Amino acid sequence: MLNTIGALGEFGLIARLTAGFPQTDDVIIGPGDDAALVRAGDGRVVATTDLLVEGRHFRRDWSTARDVGHKAAAQNLADVAAMGARPTVLLLGLAAPPELPVDWVDGFAAGLAAECAAAGAAVAGGDTVGAATLTIAITALGDLGGVPAVRRDGARPGDVVAVAGNLGMSAVGLDLLRAGLPGPDPCLDEHRRPRPPYREGPRAAALGASAMLDVSDGLLQDLGHIAAASGVAIDLDPAALRPASEVEEAVARLAAAGADPRRPLDYVLAGGEDHALAATFPASVRLPGRWSIIGRVDAGEGVTVDGSPAAPSGWDHFS
Amino acid sequence: MLNTIGALGEFGLIARLTAGFPQTDDVIIGPGDDAALVRAGDGRVVATTDLLVEGRHFRRDWSTARDVGHKAAAQNLADVAAMGARPTVLLLGLAAPPELPVDWVDGFAAGLAAECAAAGAAVAGGDTVGAATLTIAITALGDLGGVPAVRRDGARPGDVVAVAGNLGMSAVGLDLLRAGLPGPDPCLDEHRRPRPPYREGPRAAALGASAMLDVSDGLLQDLGHIAAASGVAIDLDPAALRPASEVEEAVARLAAAGADPRRPLDYVLAGGEDHALAATFPASVRLPGRWSIIGRVDAGEGVTVDGSPAAPSGWDHFS
Repeated sequence: MLNTIGALGEFGLIARLTAGFPQTDDVIIGPGDDAALVRAGDGRVVATTDLLVEGRHFRRDWSTARDVGHKAAAQNLADVAAMGARPTVLLLGLAAPPELPVDWVDGFAAGLAAECAAAGAAVAGGDTVGAATLTIAITALGDLGGVPAVRRDGARPGDVVAVAGNLGMSAVGLDLLRAGLPGPDPCLDEHRRPRPPYREGPRAAALGASAMLDVSDGLLQDLGHIAAASGVAIDLDPAALRPASEVEEAVARLAAAGADPRRPLDYVLAGGEDHALAATFPASVRLPGRWSIIGRVDAGEGVTVDGSPAAPSGWDHFS
Repeated sequence: MLNTIGALGEFGLIARLTAGFPQTDDVIIGPGDDAALVRAGDGRVVATTDLLVEGRHFRRDWSTARDVGHKAAAQNLADVAAMGARPTVLLLGLAAPPELPVDWVDGFAAGLAAECAAAGAAVAGGDTVGAATLTIAITALGDLGGVPAVRRDGARPGDVVAVAGNLGMSAVGLDLLRAGLPGPDPCLDEHRRPRPPYREGPRAAALGASAMLDVSDGLLQDLGHIAAASGVAIDLDPAALRPASEVEEAVARLAAAGADPRRPLDYVLAGGEDHALAATFPASVRLPGRWSIIGRVDAGEGVTVDGSPAAPSGWDHFS
């Protein structure tokens, strides 16, 4: 039991975790009290929470502890960015078995802290409990800095649909792991450590994005949420959805190994865990380089590709 | 599988949950977007998170779904109150097996919403995922309304130590359940649905409390945190710690059943899950009726009872 969190004990574990979490100017009171106190100069605060369960959202044999820390932070920080806000802090809830190695916790905390730093955020507090299954609960807060939040319901006919970030790489990376093809591959890297374009969230808000969300359940399904909430139709341009070469190559690797992959475009349209940002903008907005226009908003309902119905087949956490 | 959350599906479950969560003026954007948007008029926000794991923090055969909802909310809302803040919103992370009955979720959500209402808060968002073990992650936010947060490190020699809320009842209630004595008992009720004195938190802050915390790991252990953080000693008055008659009676029931209970005073000193508030105040402060003075702050270190060392035997989540 040496070198496990059970041997370290609750307070030892908390001390070890917090030692690795540098604070920022946003944190008025950090770890160690009943609650954190965080600046919210805007007078409003963006707040989101996500759970990651071992065996469902990550596997310790497929991802390093550091990878899991990066990903746990990234998926929450991306939700904050998708409202148009700058992430300020994370809170970490860690439910873990006593036999979890301290090394794993150290790596996880380092990944969490590094991803927070990449987004300008700090880990300001949390909770640790014993549990049979390693489960990570992250809450992220963010600051809009005076701009309106970008919701899902503001898309209007005539708007363009644009994406910042990578589509399909994470999902094909997951299929590589499932097929036992763990070798170096950029899609594997993307699956293990998604790189959400955090700064494009506030940037899109400042540019007047009419709707925005984090693409986490597959592009079609997520754009379906914008279409439904906004009462509009979205039509995508297949030419603009050309899979990245990394996706093409990973699919070729899967096919060569007899793993029966989906078509490259299917990974782009319905992959999941992309943590790209999808947004709609008035057609007059000049978009910065990280944004690619992939379609347009029309009157009507639903999401189509080149006018044809596309059946979203995204992710249901209980299916 | 009918009438389970697996049959309902993720989006059905979310719709059902959110339908039961009334919003308040603090919620600008509630459930349904990437993140919630919450008022933080003070320019700062209090934030805390806790995990509850089935089998560790609750048992479905010992507590109703509604009880679990009340308790999950209460322990987080109490942490917000313990900073001197008014709770504004909760975020709910629910990791649950697909076979969980929808009825259980309905009861849980009703309890969560009712406890939030008692504290003036709303459930503003969350996340649901599939998992083998039912796990609840709650984050609570709160508003200080312009007053300084009450930390653990401000106790000064000469201050009085005071408590608002019940001590020992929850722990003896848990021992009743462990002993197979589930009959009606106020200590059982307190264990299943703690009743933190939420409004006493901001009230204590307004009165000039120098330190405060939520008593969740046992009075001695938690006061030890104030003593250590403040660099002071705390001496408790045994006459002021007389166990409530409910604790005495529950201990008598346990003894009569041959269950070898702790002494009543031990439940008061080291019970756990009390969710009372303990605070220190300058001696000149006139305390309102819900606060009882139980000791005083001296120069030195550690926590004593009538001058004698008291070995804290609180709760370690990994022991």
